[in-house]
Amino acid sequence: MISWKNLDTLAAYDKLAATKGRVKLNEAMSGENGARRVAEYSVPMAGGLAYNFAAKAVDDEVLSALQALADEAQLTDKYAALYNGEVINTGEKRRVLHQLTRGQQGGAVVVDGVDKRQFYAAQQKKAAEFAAKVHAGEIANAAGEKFTTVVQIGIGGSDLGPRAMYLALEQWARQTGNLKLEARFISNVDPDDAASVLKSIDVAHSLFVLVSKSGTTLETLTNESFVKDALKNAGLDASKHMVAVTSETSPLAKSSDYLAAFFMDDFIGGRYSSTSCVGGVVLSLAFGPEVFARFLDGAAQADATAKEKDIHRNPAMLDALIGVYERNVLGYPATAVLPYSQALSRFPAHLQQLDMESNGKSVNRFGEPVDYVTGPIIFGEPGTNGQHSFYQLLHQGTDIIPLQFVGFRKNQAGMDVDIQGSTSQQKLCANVAAQIMAFACGKDDENPNKAFAGGRPSSIIIGEQLTPEALGALLSHFENKVMFQGFVWNVNSFDQEGVQLGKVLAKRVLAHDTDGALKAYSDLLDI
Amino acid sequence: MISWKNLDTLAAYDKLAATKGRVKLNEAMSGENGARRVAEYSVPMAGGLAYNFAAKAVDDEVLSALQALADEAQLTDKYAALYNGEVINTGEKRRVLHQLTRGQQGGAVVVDGVDKRQFYAAQQKKAAEFAAKVHAGEIANAAGEKFTTVVQIGIGGSDLGPRAMYLALEQWARQTGNLKLEARFISNVDPDDAASVLKSIDVAHSLFVLVSKSGTTLETLTNESFVKDALKNAGLDASKHMVAVTSETSPLAKSSDYLAAFFMDDFIGGRYSSTSCVGGVVLSLAFGPEVFARFLDGAAQADATAKEKDIHRNPAMLDALIGVYERNVLGYPATAVLPYSQALSRFPAHLQQLDMESNGKSVNRFGEPVDYVTGPIIFGEPGTNGQHSFYQLLHQGTDIIPLQFVGFRKNQAGMDVDIQGSTSQQKLCANVAAQIMAFACGKDDENPNKAFAGGRPSSIIIGEQLTPEALGALLSHFENKVMFQGFVWNVNSFDQEGVQLGKVLAKRVLAHDTDGALKAYSDLLDI
Repeated sequence: MISWKNLDTLAAYDKLAATKGRVKLNEAMSGENGARRVAEYSVPMAGGLAYNFAAKAVDDEVLSALQALADEAQLTDKYAALYNGEVINTGEKRRVLHQLTRGQQGGAVVVDGVDKRQFYAAQQKKAAEFAAKVHAGEIANAAGEKFTTVVQIGIGGSDLGPRAMYLALEQWARQTGNLKLEARFISNVDPDDAASVLKSIDVAHSLFVLVSKSGTTLETLTNESFVKDALKNAGLDASKHMVAVTSETSPLAKSSDYLAAFFMDDFIGGRYSSTSCVGGVVLSLAFGPEVFARFLDGAAQADATAKEKDIHRNPAMLDALIGVYERNVLGYPATAVLPYSQALSRFPAHLQQLDMESNGKSVNRFGEPVDYVTGPIIFGEPGTNGQHSFYQLLHQGTDIIPLQFVGFRKNQAGMDVDIQGSTSQQKLCANVAAQIMAFACGKDDENPNKAFAGGRPSSIIIGEQLTPEALGALLSHFENKVMFQGFVWNVNSFDQEGVQLGKVLAKRVLAHDTDGALKAYSDLLDI
Repeated sequence: MISWKNLDTLAAYDKLAATKGRVKLNEAMSGENGARRVAEYSVPMAGGLAYNFAAKAVDDEVLSALQALADEAQLTDKYAALYNGEVINTGEKRRVLHQLTRGQQGGAVVVDGVDKRQFYAAQQKKAAEFAAKVHAGEIANAAGEKFTTVVQIGIGGSDLGPRAMYLALEQWARQTGNLKLEARFISNVDPDDAASVLKSIDVAHSLFVLVSKSGTTLETLTNESFVKDALKNAGLDASKHMVAVTSETSPLAKSSDYLAAFFMDDFIGGRYSSTSCVGGVVLSLAFGPEVFARFLDGAAQADATAKEKDIHRNPAMLDALIGVYERNVLGYPATAVLPYSQALSRFPAHLQQLDMESNGKSVNRFGEPVDYVTGPIIFGEPGTNGQHSFYQLLHQGTDIIPLQFVGFRKNQAGMDVDIQGSTSQQKLCANVAAQIMAFACGKDDENPNKAFAGGRPSSIIIGEQLTPEALGALLSHFENKVMFQGFVWNVNSFDQEGVQLGKVLAKRVLAHDTDGALKAYSDLLDI
């Protein structure tokens, strides 16, 4: 029997809070003890990855307290309720089924007579077949020429996740002969966004994927018109250049304006939709359906790992619990995501949405205010770029900010250069190893300006190479981490009521139905 | 006589702290009082911009306290010391002269017999002449064909600022006929970064700008080799495709490996170098020297505005002081930068370096630990994209995060579309107006999950259009804001000792001179 309780009502939380300050990270990571921690504090992940938490401010006693918290909060039971199709998104009274887009962790979930796993799989099959026809030239432009570019039109989860995934595999795909179409993305309602993308492509050889679950997202419909105008101006039939990804009940679903329509539904939140058709159509077109299937496989394997009750076998749950410890017990306000991989350049932006939109809440799942902090600020840039930017504050600033590193032994593009006795990839990896230790142990110096206090915790996810499977596992890891944190904080991670008020007010501005300061700002902006 | 004192030793700070809680933002911004604030709480900026702080949690009494703090902390006197060439970067015993790259706010600054304003201006002239020859085809590739692409190779300040500035003006330049060369950027030591850029360009028609002040930045030299290999493999003479931006004493300065060399010096920090040759060469090549001169002009005008003692006439100082109030008195950990302009997509990343690297310090300028928090976390993405991502936490999360909006009445690209009775640009502007009010005033709701507490402060910088002048003014505004905050916190905003330890440890890893945890991580990463 699942019971949904606030974090501060759990006995295990009090015990966890009592461990505050017991781990001195600088000492713990020094000498052979540090080496032992690196060897032991590692949990295998799907996709050939490993979650290493040696440089986190935990020890076996803290880990026991985290396990007790996981047990008392019934984290894996709640996860089972989710993948078995219970109405976990209580605010919107919806099931949460994104895991079914890539596998089946529990029993069949049948809604209105439809087996949802079969439904999502059928949509993927449809996308795969469509992509194969595009690649074969069976679906082509009016001149019978193959499409060379795919442009996704969408915003929020219809943009950030798919864009991050595309960039993550673009070089890998180029190198392995899997880059079928180049992808571009139009998201912002700022007309300069669409203008910039349209000027950089050959519209006559471009296929557009319009993504809007409701079929009513203002930004996306506006950008669709923008694109249709551009196609018309080029003498092209827009309906031969455009497909839709939407829900079956949306106005887009049966429109003749599109070559084809692919469906998702209300049980898949935008920020959790990269493995649905929202990511599936554009990624299958870009890399081929086989690559997308490998990506799904990595995610499904990670979903399976998240079922383990033992935190030493469940990296997503462990990562989540350490995050709660840092946020609620140690009082840190933010987490920096620092992939040492240029391919993951937009992965932090995806995680920023995933995490902050899911857990940036002040009321619990029953609508009652909580008395503790919830989701942290998430930000980040790839290393080594960040080292030459904001790492100064991470090392010597007045706040401690926990760090989430990601690194791979091999790069993707198969090009490298040996300078001063090492390759670029070796330099990249040397830097991430060095940073972890610099943050953890710091350095004394008689000049306080050159001294490093250390004690700044980090974890690292390490893999052999960023492949489709590894990327799928990475995506799922963070989805499940965020889900587990939402369970611990007792918030609903699957709605986003905080985005509504701005929409309502923007409509009033456009209708000139304003007064007071809102009218004053509107006037200042010449609306 | 200037006296450098810690913030918590200033009488004005105690008085400021006593104003905590007096402004109820929800009330202040409601009704006609809100409209009055929007009209009155606005300070003109250079470049046709205005800094509007109506939605900040300040009133006339708080503003008086901020003015008193500015006076007691001698902010404009310290600024004068800086632009008159005193050794403000005490840690590294250097002057701070980036303002001289775009104008002269004080007396002549002569170092070793060289007038530094004349020195920087001469380098700009050299860059302008070089760019003009490239545009005219007088400097061309081996086949006598014009260069079409310029690629900047640099990291940190040699990348983030120039890249953000290029993207900020790319569409404007295309629309106004000023896009002479397209620009690309290679920064990360990850070999996939260079590989990706090299695969996307035509190297035979590309000019590379190598930027390293010391001439020893490992990432940059590695990427130079990468590029040279690519040029060689294409049968090209690398020395005919590459220029250097460096200091006169660097090994690159007189090398025959470059078509030309342009100089900066130790008095210009990387993050303050966009108006020096670090930005000047690539931007003059991309947009022409006249456009770059307009950009410098906007920055110089903003530098002049920063001399005003009255906070109602000095937007950078006012912005700085409000930030200190929010950080130290109100206790907020971060600031989100939210430009409603796709052209400013990487401006937050530039500000992240500028701010966090400058003021992420725990010791004052004398090397003594400070007892108060300093630089905040800076992060952001363009609106409206962010609205569909992390705004949920900004609206309903448990922490309050102050917001810095930027918006323009007109877009850049000259393309727009009218949907549902409004253009995209109007929708964009309506959204930023709506967001400001939603954050400030919130909304009651009987369902707490749909309620918005409000009380979340923001400011907005508003302009007519993002032109070169406006961009220069925007850049300078934030440089000067960060400088003033550093003065208030009594830290040295112009060194970055926090980046050193990681470099030292990375070298040890590459030399296999490690033990303990560092060796363990190195082994895990196969270095």
